[in-house]
Amino acid sequence: MTTTPSLRLARWGSFHVGGRETRVAGEPPREVLFTPGSAPALIDPNGTYLVGSLYAQAMTPDPCRGAVPLLLWHGGGLTGACWETTPDGREGWQHFFLRQGWEVIVSDAVERGRSGWMRIPEETGGVPVTISVENPWTRFRIGTGTPDDGTLLPGNQFPGDAASWRNFIRQCVPRFTTTDALTLDAYGALLDRVGPSVVVAHSQGGYFAWRAAQEWPDRVRALVLVEPASIGLMDKVAALAGIPVLMIYGDYIEGDPRWPSIRAQGIAFADAVRAAGGSVDLVDLPAIGITGNSHMVQMDRNSDQVAALVQDWLAARGLWR
Amino acid sequence: MTTTPSLRLARWGSFHVGGRETRVAGEPPREVLFTPGSAPALIDPNGTYLVGSLYAQAMTPDPCRGAVPLLLWHGGGLTGACWETTPDGREGWQHFFLRQGWEVIVSDAVERGRSGWMRIPEETGGVPVTISVENPWTRFRIGTGTPDDGTLLPGNQFPGDAASWRNFIRQCVPRFTTTDALTLDAYGALLDRVGPSVVVAHSQGGYFAWRAAQEWPDRVRALVLVEPASIGLMDKVAALAGIPVLMIYGDYIEGDPRWPSIRAQGIAFADAVRAAGGSVDLVDLPAIGITGNSHMVQMDRNSDQVAALVQDWLAARGLWR
Repeated sequence: MTTTPSLRLARWGSFHVGGRETRVAGEPPREVLFTPGSAPALIDPNGTYLVGSLYAQAMTPDPCRGAVPLLLWHGGGLTGACWETTPDGREGWQHFFLRQGWEVIVSDAVERGRSGWMRIPEETGGVPVTISVENPWTRFRIGTGTPDDGTLLPGNQFPGDAASWRNFIRQCVPRFTTTDALTLDAYGALLDRVGPSVVVAHSQGGYFAWRAAQEWPDRVRALVLVEPASIGLMDKVAALAGIPVLMIYGDYIEGDPRWPSIRAQGIAFADAVRAAGGSVDLVDLPAIGITGNSHMVQMDRNSDQVAALVQDWLAARGLWR
Repeated sequence: MTTTPSLRLARWGSFHVGGRETRVAGEPPREVLFTPGSAPALIDPNGTYLVGSLYAQAMTPDPCRGAVPLLLWHGGGLTGACWETTPDGREGWQHFFLRQGWEVIVSDAVERGRSGWMRIPEETGGVPVTISVENPWTRFRIGTGTPDDGTLLPGNQFPGDAASWRNFIRQCVPRFTTTDALTLDAYGALLDRVGPSVVVAHSQGGYFAWRAAQEWPDRVRALVLVEPASIGLMDKVAALAGIPVLMIYGDYIEGDPRWPSIRAQGIAFADAVRAAGGSVDLVDLPAIGITGNSHMVQMDRNSDQVAALVQDWLAARGLWR
């Protein structure tokens, strides 16, 4: 952590929201020795469980300049920690927006991080998808070959040195692909608790952001979608008419096996939202001279430059004083 | 979150430490649709994995008055969030010690919270132990019957109303009982990174604190063990001779099926440490007039009162200026 100006917090804290109850019955009790040398406990696995709640950490700076809270929703295989530090130890977008004066709320998606995966997959089915050291190197448009080769795509801004890469991989967590309904419900509970907000979402988070804005449009004052992995429901685009949207895509998309179609689908959805009366601004970073961004825009060496673009866009929409 | 004085942070951020590499080979590739409507990805599960790293969040107040960092290690079935808020929404011990001027480092134990459970249990064996809504009500010495009855032990200070109880249960995460070696290693990596520290540990965290102090005594300046669930190694008590220790136990122990033996074992270990030249102070809270504490001392309504006792003890040992 580098030396930076100190920051005054009016308050900070965390909370869990959402989830639903489920009942388990007919299972045999288990004797569990929780800690070596401690006394065994007889654990009855039967009873009521809370499944699908969501952890959120809220920080409010003093002074506060955001008109509403700014929520940071992470992508698949990660947790809210991806906003809190970059793999090379710089400050994350959580810091950037807090320093601008926003109340920033970072959450961990359902079954990830501090939200926990209680009774998942028992209630949802599915097997956890895990992330090897090698996998995201090409899939997140960072380099060619393997991270051990260390060959970055030309001009790539992701901190791809060996130590930073390990730091990034340590942030990765198992994820299910069967928990979308629970996760959307939990984001709804979050919006219900904190009230109308700006939602800044990355990758898979972009899918939940579109869907949450369609379900609870009165709770979303603006959407900022950084490399959204998917789109909302086509038959509900009208719900988005009153919500300004900014979509941001990084570099190297044309050479990727998946991102041309993901981006094209995003653009088609944006067109549909506009046709329904909505406002969507789309930024391809290379087209405005910001080059070298991987899929992990908030971790790339120019992360603050892209955050500043988001900040200016939000300020121009009257959401920051 | 109630209104409290603002707080100036010199810096804050997070990092992951520790873990070891493991190789997976011979598994078939899997096509995964990460997000509905997105493009499927072919995921090769083979390769290198990082297993057993640990997430830590460090906050440094301005001004800083602690001579060394103060680490908060949580107990089983929980994450670092247990220091960040109480179930009734008060500030946690993370706040308390930060407001006193300590650099506070809150971590999530291996396989829990933001540390993630990548390749667990594949590498460790074991099945996750989950926590029902009902289970901790009696096991943590809070009430009788079930939480739906809502009958607290006489004078119990845990916030046991229905809403707070749900908040507490939402903090609980699955935990394995097969990850102790990985976890101890990761705490070692944490101490190696942040340097000599005060370790404040709760329940299962107390076991790791004893063991870490025995393995790396030059990295531990003091131990504060709140209801430690177990003890260190008897044949290594000499390693603890130079480390002042404070052990704290709550109320209702004599009526519990497990805690009399857990506490007696702790006292016997403290005696062995003293016999080897060490210094251990033992506080039974009811014996000094602080009554009603459950196992979750840092969440009880008098949590700040107990924290103040810890603060005074640390200050008396010259660790706070």
